[in-house]
Amino acid sequence: MTYNPILVNALRGGIVESAHRGALAIVDADGAVHTQHGDISRPIFPRSAVKVLQALPLVASGAAERWQLNDEELALACASHGGEPRHAQTAAAMLAKAGVDVQVLECGAHWPYHDGSIKAMAAAGQQPTALNNNCSGKHAGFVCLGCLLAEQGGSDRRAFLRGYVLPGHTVMREVTAALQASTGYDLARTAVGTDGCSIPTYAVPLRHLAHAFARVGTGVGLRPEHQRAAQRLRKAVAAAPFMVAGSGRFDTRVMERLGARVFCKVGAEGVHCAALPELGLGVAIKMDDGNNSRACEVVMAAVIERLLPLEDAQATFMRSLSELTLSNWNGITVGQLQAAPELRAG
Amino acid sequence: MTYNPILVNALRGGIVESAHRGALAIVDADGAVHTQHGDISRPIFPRSAVKVLQALPLVASGAAERWQLNDEELALACASHGGEPRHAQTAAAMLAKAGVDVQVLECGAHWPYHDGSIKAMAAAGQQPTALNNNCSGKHAGFVCLGCLLAEQGGSDRRAFLRGYVLPGHTVMREVTAALQASTGYDLARTAVGTDGCSIPTYAVPLRHLAHAFARVGTGVGLRPEHQRAAQRLRKAVAAAPFMVAGSGRFDTRVMERLGARVFCKVGAEGVHCAALPELGLGVAIKMDDGNNSRACEVVMAAVIERLLPLEDAQATFMRSLSELTLSNWNGITVGQLQAAPELRAG
Repeated sequence: MTYNPILVNALRGGIVESAHRGALAIVDADGAVHTQHGDISRPIFPRSAVKVLQALPLVASGAAERWQLNDEELALACASHGGEPRHAQTAAAMLAKAGVDVQVLECGAHWPYHDGSIKAMAAAGQQPTALNNNCSGKHAGFVCLGCLLAEQGGSDRRAFLRGYVLPGHTVMREVTAALQASTGYDLARTAVGTDGCSIPTYAVPLRHLAHAFARVGTGVGLRPEHQRAAQRLRKAVAAAPFMVAGSGRFDTRVMERLGARVFCKVGAEGVHCAALPELGLGVAIKMDDGNNSRACEVVMAAVIERLLPLEDAQATFMRSLSELTLSNWNGITVGQLQAAPELRAG
Repeated sequence: MTYNPILVNALRGGIVESAHRGALAIVDADGAVHTQHGDISRPIFPRSAVKVLQALPLVASGAAERWQLNDEELALACASHGGEPRHAQTAAAMLAKAGVDVQVLECGAHWPYHDGSIKAMAAAGQQPTALNNNCSGKHAGFVCLGCLLAEQGGSDRRAFLRGYVLPGHTVMREVTAALQASTGYDLARTAVGTDGCSIPTYAVPLRHLAHAFARVGTGVGLRPEHQRAAQRLRKAVAAAPFMVAGSGRFDTRVMERLGARVFCKVGAEGVHCAALPELGLGVAIKMDDGNNSRACEVVMAAVIERLLPLEDAQATFMRSLSELTLSNWNGITVGQLQAAPELRAG
């Protein structure tokens, strides 16, 4: 791995205690590089950061319309959510609209990411299901697409859906084709891994990921049905930002404040992507060490703060995410988390 | 920060998905460097990795004897524990022996680190106290030392203890003096931060930290009362390794397997230190990005595996900690976590 620059510093006692290296690409819809830090040509696994690209076929196919999915449900299809009750209920509602239930989900079950929901479930003696999986909305979207395809082909829905997470399944081929079309990267010739929820994840350079998000934000360079789908999904997320992440989470908080001006999405292992439609730019970040909450989010906050014209209150809010005060168990200030100065310049 | 080498790789789909850089010092009791990776001269905050050094005055002063602390309690004084019921109960017992209770603890309260204990407490409608704080044993040790000093000076215990976490308090001055004596590093002239539990943390180079652990393992270079205290504390931890961390935790699992042949202790922000008494060596690791569970622990496992002569079953066990298979929510293998090859050579 190349020596990427330090993008975030964690300070304590007046010195750098820890630091996070990474790479950042900001690209316009024509593919021109606006900003580059570190290696943006090495293929990296985007993981959940590209859920909006993977959701394009859900809308483009007509499935979202066929099952009358609303803003909250479409936002959940792009989400890595906290598994809070509203998230789980919304995923269940998507499945019900398509005439199936939680049994068809192939993402696996895990306890909610949201701390309060873990404790509430434990207090109620409940066990998590696949609906609590942070990817349940994305999978419900895959299932909704699959149910339309099954209906069109006269197949039994459950039988058709079986193995929808595998690369060769019709549903996943549609999803992969959308990823390839939007990133313009040859996925047949890149590394492929298995994601946490069992679907394939394809390695794509940051430069291509940022380009894809510039396209999602502007429609430029997307085929017409993907243009419309991207616009519909961005509108849904802007209308229901709680669904895309959840209580206290970065993406939800930022989009609650900035609305449709930003579409941002975290991915596992320190990935973050964003579209900034009014600037025609896409952003893609990968932290070398895979750190999300205190690395890629801090970088993304600094990027948004620098690029978007913001009112004072919004700028102050973004600064609270790009320069954080760290407190200990007694509430005493012990340090700071800061985006590197280079991210603020130029 | 200097460019430290990659010490751990996280692989997925046949490529490196993320990587952790860091530095490693292995030093003998005379201070000679046995192995060096990266910058071992830069002062870093050792955080909780030096709890055994901070516990030296508890034994050296006679407080451990005065309050009749047993192996479990002395191990807890060196611990960053999971806040499991046995940990909390043991901390409470230490305080009771010294004639005080949880009210005197100044470490703050937080939910247990141990997942099952969080859920059990939530199910029982309980809230955490300072006894669940991962540092409660260390603080109970400070309190036991303070209660002896108060008794010797004819002071009221509670009044004497107030502010024991502050650098200028008699208790903390004793603790800092032990840290300085064992590391041989001038703490008056280095950076000082506030730790998670509110006591000061002093920046010390890895080289000096490894040297201190070589001294703890051998007694060489320690003053007589610290020699005896180090031996007593190592014996206690070897006898009660559950107390030093807890269920499923690295330090507990390693010492349950290897007993007194290893004394290892994690610290926040990617620090790990160890004494290997039979080899006369001390080990100190700092990961640049502050990652503990999948970075410094993997490095420590590789170091132990390489340096200590092990039976096959022990070697297999250590290899399971230095090369981990990563599975997803469905139990499918998705990748590996591996110590860098350089750590296995030479």
